[in-house]
Amino acid sequence: MIMSRIEAPRDEVTGNLLDRLLDGLPAEAVLTDPDVTAAYAHDMASFCPAGTPAAVVLPRTVEQVQHVLRTATELRVPVVPQGARTGLSGGANASDGCLVLSLTKMDRILEISPVDRIAVVEPGVVNAVLSRAVAEHGLSYPPDPSSWEMCTIGGNIGTASGGLCCVKYGVTAEYVLGLDVVLADGRLMSTGRRTAKGVAGYDLTRLFVGSEGSLGVVVRATLALKPQPPRQLVLAAEFASAAAACDAVCRIMADGHVPSLLELMDRTTVKAVNELTRMGLPETTEALLLAAFDTPDPAADLAAVGALCEAAGATQVVPAEDAAESELLLQARRSSLVALEAVKGTTMIDDVCVPRSRLGDMLEGVERIAEKYRLTIGVCAHAGDGNTHPTVCFDAADPDEARRARESFDEIMALGLELGGTITGEHGVGVLKKEWLARELGPVGMEMQRRIKQAFDPLGILNPGKLF
Amino acid sequence: MIMSRIEAPRDEVTGNLLDRLLDGLPAEAVLTDPDVTAAYAHDMASFCPAGTPAAVVLPRTVEQVQHVLRTATELRVPVVPQGARTGLSGGANASDGCLVLSLTKMDRILEISPVDRIAVVEPGVVNAVLSRAVAEHGLSYPPDPSSWEMCTIGGNIGTASGGLCCVKYGVTAEYVLGLDVVLADGRLMSTGRRTAKGVAGYDLTRLFVGSEGSLGVVVRATLALKPQPPRQLVLAAEFASAAAACDAVCRIMADGHVPSLLELMDRTTVKAVNELTRMGLPETTEALLLAAFDTPDPAADLAAVGALCEAAGATQVVPAEDAAESELLLQARRSSLVALEAVKGTTMIDDVCVPRSRLGDMLEGVERIAEKYRLTIGVCAHAGDGNTHPTVCFDAADPDEARRARESFDEIMALGLELGGTITGEHGVGVLKKEWLARELGPVGMEMQRRIKQAFDPLGILNPGKLF
Repeated sequence: MIMSRIEAPRDEVTGNLLDRLLDGLPAEAVLTDPDVTAAYAHDMASFCPAGTPAAVVLPRTVEQVQHVLRTATELRVPVVPQGARTGLSGGANASDGCLVLSLTKMDRILEISPVDRIAVVEPGVVNAVLSRAVAEHGLSYPPDPSSWEMCTIGGNIGTASGGLCCVKYGVTAEYVLGLDVVLADGRLMSTGRRTAKGVAGYDLTRLFVGSEGSLGVVVRATLALKPQPPRQLVLAAEFASAAAACDAVCRIMADGHVPSLLELMDRTTVKAVNELTRMGLPETTEALLLAAFDTPDPAADLAAVGALCEAAGATQVVPAEDAAESELLLQARRSSLVALEAVKGTTMIDDVCVPRSRLGDMLEGVERIAEKYRLTIGVCAHAGDGNTHPTVCFDAADPDEARRARESFDEIMALGLELGGTITGEHGVGVLKKEWLARELGPVGMEMQRRIKQAFDPLGILNPGKLF
Repeated sequence: MIMSRIEAPRDEVTGNLLDRLLDGLPAEAVLTDPDVTAAYAHDMASFCPAGTPAAVVLPRTVEQVQHVLRTATELRVPVVPQGARTGLSGGANASDGCLVLSLTKMDRILEISPVDRIAVVEPGVVNAVLSRAVAEHGLSYPPDPSSWEMCTIGGNIGTASGGLCCVKYGVTAEYVLGLDVVLADGRLMSTGRRTAKGVAGYDLTRLFVGSEGSLGVVVRATLALKPQPPRQLVLAAEFASAAAACDAVCRIMADGHVPSLLELMDRTTVKAVNELTRMGLPETTEALLLAAFDTPDPAADLAAVGALCEAAGATQVVPAEDAAESELLLQARRSSLVALEAVKGTTMIDDVCVPRSRLGDMLEGVERIAEKYRLTIGVCAHAGDGNTHPTVCFDAADPDEARRARESFDEIMALGLELGGTITGEHGVGVLKKEWLARELGPVGMEMQRRIKQAFDPLGILNPGKLF
């Protein structure tokens, strides 16, 4: 790697930057081979614009991160903090001449305490690795984005990611108790606590969750854990219309149930999953609802929910008989995005969250938009949260279709705002939705957002061009 | 009241202020009679310093609040936002010449939605009023500070208050989805959402929770609700030492239980409650632990927890037989602070939260401090959260005792920090602990806290002298 550094084209500015970086980083922690650094240039929103980084740094210690930020401040070089690049909004995309600061090598689990129900981790720990480690202590770390086998805790914190569990267990923000953060100028700040409660000063911890690396770099996190729940049991219900499925969701939630998962797949998604996986999901259905409970008596809860589904017009209700059958149903749901990607080669995944009472209106509206733009738009949704992922399938090589895809994508966000929702339930703003943020927050909200940014990063070197 | 305004001494500055206020407020919304305004000068931390307000304003609409803030900005008059003044840190205390802005007249519940599981309320709604209103829809608003029959939602948000339920249901912060806030200059800003999830921009909602009215004035809140759980059943366990009781707490939490309440009263507190209420709690015990479950089968959970208490050395374990017996035990716990106040006339209530694994060390340390300063210090604690309320009982008329009380109070906070805890688990900083905030947060943390304050309130007119 040090060879590649020397071979790469070195203008004076870059040369100076690299020399300064190497004052505090080992050579193998600084990558400059363009073939290598290109792989770090973007996250999974492949259609979002991305620049060419000057270098990629892979620190292993807090001190090394501090050195990187001090150097970047001194030389006014933009820094793009990065986890596993599984994001869907371009939030980790490089800008031209930036330093990509990958935290993936800081991947130690520093502590797991069953009595205090906390874990202390470095940002590069993979979500699934942490989940398995705490499971050995009878504990669970609930947030479970679809990318959980790859994504890192630091990335989860940066994007405030969600997952299938949120309807019962909430989002990443609710599990972050305290942080160690390296500020733009290289100083180290601790926020929050390792106690169950604490209200000493403004809640800077929560401010960092979802800030997409634009306020500082998380180098350590204290996370809340829960006792491991019983294994969940899943039920599948088929509906003759999306409206009926959404009605079932409303009945289930209004009736006081607390499912551990409540997911919806529309006809387009079901068909795509069948084509990819040969799973044999029922193709005649217009909407498939998956509900799960991890309660002491999940079969009883599923029976009650099944009855509500039938009252809402379900054509068939099939409770899984055991954990293996349940897992199969979840696999179908988890493969939705990949399956929809296979339809036309490229997707734009939207992430509009509406009040769940408006879920039916949202799905109806998306169908209308798909017709208007002559596009395939599959919807899978964390239905219990009203969090929809309308996924526009298009051929990126067809400019007219790509234009229609972009326009439909925007119209879906407009619809979400009109229904009292938000442009992003869990994927974040990144570069994908930054023009939309102002529409959601309004001028006063935007001004205060910018003042926060200014307070933490007066030089604007942290992940510039994202969020705003 | 308009009479009292005219009769009150009016210097030119105050006269101008009052005239401007009355341009946008009805006369009955502006109080200036010193006998009346004195009642608004302080919260329940009666020993904290409080100034004399220039006036008290009681707006009924958002527009009136905006007028107050615009006027205050224009004339550079400090504004002290205020709920029911049940706070315990002096956070709502008046400063000399300030405008006390009481939100108690804005007390409408605007919406309760069982499908979306949210309530939209004005800040002056009393916690218990909201709790009862949502209960009629089969819903619950969990945060339950001891003052829940009096305190307001706006005050709860300002102080990020907790309660007995937190060990299972978390604190106020976790129930605030969105806010309407009047900024220092009178502009209105909306934060957050009415959806279950949302990550559009920095989380300004959480920044306001616990900000003690120092960043803006909350005029509307969208709150998350939960389905109403089954009624909880309580168990009481007696221990021959506080250490054994703390050991039981650790065993219960490490064993994966999720009690709806896990409270501890030390010998001093038990004795005080008996003296006040003649409840006949067991006086020979060194520590009384109360555990509760609101699960489908609370008796089974209590049996398991009872066994763990016995394993930790409980001398007696008494499960309540029904809801009435449970309620009696909770009343004992709820009357602790009043009972301790009766011991010597005045109390200083500390609010140190430690990792629950250090709870035993905390209690042992407080006992040592009580001996050192020759004081009665009763401890009740939200033991499941490690959140202790060491309550120093003293005679305010005895200067030496008052000095010792203050010193012991500080030493308790120092001990909490030493044990990896925080100076405030749920009561906030106010004026009581502002010198301690810097010790907990350190210089970098304090600098960023101040920058946040500066971003929202550049003139420093919002609740000056609190927090910092």
